[in-house]
Amino acid sequence: MTGISRRAVLGGAAGVGAAAVGFGGGYAFGRDAALDASHTVAFRGAHQAGIVTEAQDRLHFAAFDVITDKREDVVAMLQKWTDAAERMTRGEEVTPDGAIGLGDYVPPTDTGEALGLSAAHLTLTVGFGPGLFGPSAAYPDRPDRFGLAARKPAGLTDLPAFAAEKIEPQRSYGDICVQACADDPQVAVHAIRNLARIGVGVVSVRWSQLGFGRTSATTRSQDTPRNLFGFKDGTANIRADETDDLNKWVWVGEQDNPPAAQWMTGGTYLVARRIRMDIEPWDRANLLEQELIVGRTKGPGAPLGQVGEFDEPDFRVTSGGAPRIPRNSHVAVTNPQNRGGVRILRRGYNFTDGSDGFGHLDAGLFFIAFNRDSHTQFIPMQQDMSRKDAMTEYLIPNGSAHFAVPAGLKPGEYWGQHLFA
Amino acid sequence: MTGISRRAVLGGAAGVGAAAVGFGGGYAFGRDAALDASHTVAFRGAHQAGIVTEAQDRLHFAAFDVITDKREDVVAMLQKWTDAAERMTRGEEVTPDGAIGLGDYVPPTDTGEALGLSAAHLTLTVGFGPGLFGPSAAYPDRPDRFGLAARKPAGLTDLPAFAAEKIEPQRSYGDICVQACADDPQVAVHAIRNLARIGVGVVSVRWSQLGFGRTSATTRSQDTPRNLFGFKDGTANIRADETDDLNKWVWVGEQDNPPAAQWMTGGTYLVARRIRMDIEPWDRANLLEQELIVGRTKGPGAPLGQVGEFDEPDFRVTSGGAPRIPRNSHVAVTNPQNRGGVRILRRGYNFTDGSDGFGHLDAGLFFIAFNRDSHTQFIPMQQDMSRKDAMTEYLIPNGSAHFAVPAGLKPGEYWGQHLFA
Repeated sequence: MTGISRRAVLGGAAGVGAAAVGFGGGYAFGRDAALDASHTVAFRGAHQAGIVTEAQDRLHFAAFDVITDKREDVVAMLQKWTDAAERMTRGEEVTPDGAIGLGDYVPPTDTGEALGLSAAHLTLTVGFGPGLFGPSAAYPDRPDRFGLAARKPAGLTDLPAFAAEKIEPQRSYGDICVQACADDPQVAVHAIRNLARIGVGVVSVRWSQLGFGRTSATTRSQDTPRNLFGFKDGTANIRADETDDLNKWVWVGEQDNPPAAQWMTGGTYLVARRIRMDIEPWDRANLLEQELIVGRTKGPGAPLGQVGEFDEPDFRVTSGGAPRIPRNSHVAVTNPQNRGGVRILRRGYNFTDGSDGFGHLDAGLFFIAFNRDSHTQFIPMQQDMSRKDAMTEYLIPNGSAHFAVPAGLKPGEYWGQHLFA
Repeated sequence: MTGISRRAVLGGAAGVGAAAVGFGGGYAFGRDAALDASHTVAFRGAHQAGIVTEAQDRLHFAAFDVITDKREDVVAMLQKWTDAAERMTRGEEVTPDGAIGLGDYVPPTDTGEALGLSAAHLTLTVGFGPGLFGPSAAYPDRPDRFGLAARKPAGLTDLPAFAAEKIEPQRSYGDICVQACADDPQVAVHAIRNLARIGVGVVSVRWSQLGFGRTSATTRSQDTPRNLFGFKDGTANIRADETDDLNKWVWVGEQDNPPAAQWMTGGTYLVARRIRMDIEPWDRANLLEQELIVGRTKGPGAPLGQVGEFDEPDFRVTSGGAPRIPRNSHVAVTNPQNRGGVRILRRGYNFTDGSDGFGHLDAGLFFIAFNRDSHTQFIPMQQDMSRKDAMTEYLIPNGSAHFAVPAGLKPGEYWGQHLFA
């Protein structure tokens, strides 16, 4: 009995009485694909979903340590993960009838909290960290456990230390990451939780981060949202229809790696940074000071001296002899005009994780960026930011991670197949 | 220029170009009340909003320590809070043009991250903790700083210690609480953050908790959602249309307090419990074991032996000589049938706060309940749960707080006016 959708079950139970749809613990249900067609993002394709996909509003991001030395166990888990991930992105349970239909005397294969919820445009994006290939910042003494050292792509190093950061290892690094984005946070949390459950004995959750509000637009039809400084964030982001720029700045090309690392062709590098914002001092700064730090107006988000959000910043304009957009403003440091045209694809989220124990909210930006080569794109930009960007005074990056995100899957392929095969 | 809504500004800036709506930092905007009429919940009324209000999907709950001894400063802050709260629940900024319209050389009075967002059915509900009236669990040696001891309602004590809990003081207690519920988490976070900002020097954030998914229905039209055990939660909840039961079990009556504490009439007591769920062992339990612990089926959520979610549990039914619903099941321990008819109003939320440092997600239920007298309703139920409820094996309550939530405000009144006046 798989003709009932996750959503239909809940609606049916509440609306017309559960008598119509179920009986006791042996009761089974799946979902109706037709119902969820408008809430799904294709799982397979040339590139992984969740990169240029129109940014969903909610995030659960998890980094895992691989805790086994057995290569075959890792492969087996990735195969199971792929099946489960594909099913969940269709709004299905981890296995058919997984939550309640497999019988009384086995643990359910689906944890059940997404029953009744739609697919919510769930995307699951996998990446592999430096530690999968040998020694890493998290485990400097660890050998190449899986015989993958030769397959490590040139670009996949641990991120260097930057000025003005306070990296906490328990919020950083990881051998494998999964980015879950969805319209409904319960759907994203359910997905990560079920992957963690499947991975028991093979991986362990190293850290995870929820984001409640996206801070970037990835398509033309999306408004630019605001970060917790109250400013629009990511105006200059690469959009999904900028194919040439995606090929130039996001997707790894064949020429970027030797034959042994060709599994990365069509992939990209994911940079994750947990950036605590010092919001209390920020909130005491004058409007003008805030705008001079950002280099944009707080209202429409226009570059200083311009009118509209999407007007190109003009760094030549002066005011009283000084540049209208200060040279140490965030826009001046990061805008492609001042970086030889270099761009990155951003996909960040606002977070608030309770309080910090000192009377303040622990709030900030969980920065995610995708780029073709972090060493010529993200890293130099971050080095300049941490040294020159006035905004740095209000930022405390305390989590940092770098992952190689392989290309998308063809039918029948599993996550990491071309790496491990 | 207050004729542009928070939402209209963002739409305008992205959709038709910001040139049409703004210019530089001196640009001002407010909102259009008509636009948000369908996204607002009335702030004033006989009772505070956010109690029987149809449960919104997202929560940000904050508990504050009062860090001043000056009564007039507390009153002044509560007056400012009330103005700001009422405005924010209408989808307005903290003050007119607060984010960008007050001039370049003053700090904005609104932090701005909700510009462009609707009111999102925001409700803000205030409560006062034992510490406002004298010594408390958080500060046992603190005197009655504000001369309020005589006005302390009989029901407002610190919650007692329960078996099987691991209370962390940094997640517990508090002199004042604000519960922010909204459809959009950014709106809830914005509200708490701006109240914290207004309260600088008077209050300090002691703890705060985000909840991503509601675990209760408060109206007939809402489906019963699922908690992170995958079960429907709160089926037996009091609904907003059960006026008699609300008067009996939720709203404090005139006869409940002496004249000095009549400010609580029409109010209620809020119990907050951060309950970490031991989800990994739970996920390894058989379906039958899970259902015997809960006392309901996992699919439709029917009481064991019954068919539909809203069927009344029948504790007389036996199976093989034993009760079909085990006596130590959650339903048996908590159902009104077995508690002399006693009910409470639940308004809980699922949470996931990253990982616990031991390879697991830090996930669970942020339990909120409202009752007329915690000493005869919540506390005995929790005492029974912690001793008899089989579910307790999978629960680690690590935060606990108790607040007196006053009645709603008449026009012109401020939060706590009848307490402090």
